[in-house]
Amino acid sequence: MKNITLLGATGSIGLQTIDVIKEHPEQFNLYAIAFGKNVDKATEIIEAFKPKKVVVQDEQTRRELSIHTDQLTILVGKEGMEEVSADPETDVLVNAVMGSVGLGATLTAIKHKKQIAIANKETLVTAGHLVMEAAKHYGVDLLPVDSEHSAIFQSLNGESRKDINKIILTASGGSFRDKTREQLKGVTVADALNHPNWSMGAKITIDSATMMNKGLEVIEAHWLFDIPYDKIEVIQHKESIIHSMVEYADKSIIAQLGTPDMRVPIQYALTYPNRLPLSASKSLDLVELSTLHFAKMDMDRFPCLAFAYHAGEKGGSLPTVLNAANEAAVDLFLREKITFLEIEDVIEQAMTSHKIIENPDLDTINAIDAETRKKLYEKY
Amino acid sequence: MKNITLLGATGSIGLQTIDVIKEHPEQFNLYAIAFGKNVDKATEIIEAFKPKKVVVQDEQTRRELSIHTDQLTILVGKEGMEEVSADPETDVLVNAVMGSVGLGATLTAIKHKKQIAIANKETLVTAGHLVMEAAKHYGVDLLPVDSEHSAIFQSLNGESRKDINKIILTASGGSFRDKTREQLKGVTVADALNHPNWSMGAKITIDSATMMNKGLEVIEAHWLFDIPYDKIEVIQHKESIIHSMVEYADKSIIAQLGTPDMRVPIQYALTYPNRLPLSASKSLDLVELSTLHFAKMDMDRFPCLAFAYHAGEKGGSLPTVLNAANEAAVDLFLREKITFLEIEDVIEQAMTSHKIIENPDLDTINAIDAETRKKLYEKY
Repeated sequence: MKNITLLGATGSIGLQTIDVIKEHPEQFNLYAIAFGKNVDKATEIIEAFKPKKVVVQDEQTRRELSIHTDQLTILVGKEGMEEVSADPETDVLVNAVMGSVGLGATLTAIKHKKQIAIANKETLVTAGHLVMEAAKHYGVDLLPVDSEHSAIFQSLNGESRKDINKIILTASGGSFRDKTREQLKGVTVADALNHPNWSMGAKITIDSATMMNKGLEVIEAHWLFDIPYDKIEVIQHKESIIHSMVEYADKSIIAQLGTPDMRVPIQYALTYPNRLPLSASKSLDLVELSTLHFAKMDMDRFPCLAFAYHAGEKGGSLPTVLNAANEAAVDLFLREKITFLEIEDVIEQAMTSHKIIENPDLDTINAIDAETRKKLYEKY
Repeated sequence: MKNITLLGATGSIGLQTIDVIKEHPEQFNLYAIAFGKNVDKATEIIEAFKPKKVVVQDEQTRRELSIHTDQLTILVGKEGMEEVSADPETDVLVNAVMGSVGLGATLTAIKHKKQIAIANKETLVTAGHLVMEAAKHYGVDLLPVDSEHSAIFQSLNGESRKDINKIILTASGGSFRDKTREQLKGVTVADALNHPNWSMGAKITIDSATMMNKGLEVIEAHWLFDIPYDKIEVIQHKESIIHSMVEYADKSIIAQLGTPDMRVPIQYALTYPNRLPLSASKSLDLVELSTLHFAKMDMDRFPCLAFAYHAGEKGGSLPTVLNAANEAAVDLFLREKITFLEIEDVIEQAMTSHKIIENPDLDTINAIDAETRKKLYEKY
């Protein structure tokens, strides 16, 4: 029985992680959860799974929750997340919080040598060098939950990393893949939230529409698999069936395929190196599907992808700025303070005006992250 | 440096094996070869690679070859192939002879615990139970060279076989995939030899057109991977890019992809569990390809596939009859003694009139194999 501590429990990945735990009660126990403000959903989870500890975003949420439940340790904020991540009872940390707020918990879990399933890509984007250095130092594996990175991780099974020629990330193209840049001028928040293949949270769905999601994934892949940027390729694959691929020295490509179902990579991160049945998930039927399409990824059509490659290659503190500016811009777009195309402008301006600091430490990263957001919120 | 003994050196797989050896002179040495009657080609190979031993099909070929070469041990026939397979200097046996004539050499190499790269699928079809029993007993791995089985083998890397849900073999459909059965009535040998994707020997190209090749592969997969027939699926995939797939318990599918190039699986069987560069082979460009197609495999359109599933499931001596009748029928078709559609009739008649012997030993298999052929050659 593995004790699971789940950060971001009421989000899309969090709820699908709970689906997986539910399917295997003999294997997994939900030991602790962290969530933001969704008290109703959290209360349901707490009643059904009786976790020992709960972390909430702020004092007000703590008070709200304590009315509904008793016999429960309630912790607050980043410190709370770090405490449950370090908890001796925690076997596996599933970090599915949204944004760079998940960084501290990941670093804490690494120091305590936990098994870590990482769905929080912003952690690796904003501080990849620190996270991977710590993971190496403590001998901890970071098990990816993102479908693309899980696909790569599965395609690397039993292989030697020195034999990798390149990684090929697939991208559905997001909600607006068939729109020209001209047509993007009038799009609304509702349009952007309508992803063709995947059911996901709002932030990642917008990131898919701007292609920043794929950009963040490129940086995440660079750190997770220790691969230079010129060996990471992105191609468009609108059906999201081949989740990603690895080409080896002999030109052989190993790929992972399946229906678009996040429970598969989530469960794999929990069961690795083994597998378990997942009856809730549907078998891929390629005959029914009949056709898979592939197309070139157009960096002019999707400048956010180019920004991410640029930030990754320049390195230092630039990826932190890319990520913080993107988080703020998406938030501003969702609150209708800026238009869809202004997301790109906002990120580009933040990156252009930033003076890169090489090899930033955690305090520097946190300061740059906060400063980048502050500037943008003051402006819009 | 690995000493390679290559049976079937002048055939399509043989020559491509030599390509691989040529690319890695520091890794591989061509120690011995066996060939049929192509003295010219064999002489070229002998001059270029200076193998220590050569096996030829018959006395006449031995005499012919001895005029061209000296300082060379020349052996003859099945006994010769078994001798080089057992040779203490042989590290790897590549068995790429065509037909069940390769069986003795494979069994000999197993007993001498050689690394075995097996391209001779008829060996496993005709005597899978004996071959796998011996491989298990002597703790020898059989490394597949067929592109489909290599794809499955690569997709099983680092995985546990108990987690396999099913194997999905892909089939291009062969030279006649777009013809109706009515249209097959008038086809010629030249039409049948025109395979859309793969450049292969005549026998396997005809087997692809009848879909018997895929049937033999189903039986081969059953033995190589110890998978029941109801967990082996065949789907049509006309581009031959996804070479085959494995679905696991969690519905995750691992696949191996690449351009249709036999040098990739050949080299993998020689380098396993490692990989080496293969500069001669072309990287797969999915963007250029743009589309992959999948369709249901129609057992009525391709009765040979149904015959193979039937023979595999019934077991005993029936697969031996299937294979021997097919070899004879393809030979009769290539010599224009029977029509294309009569290949199916001939095999069906041979199977229907056979009384199955359970768990046949090697002598019984050889006797049934010879008798099946004899009957057919007497008739046509």
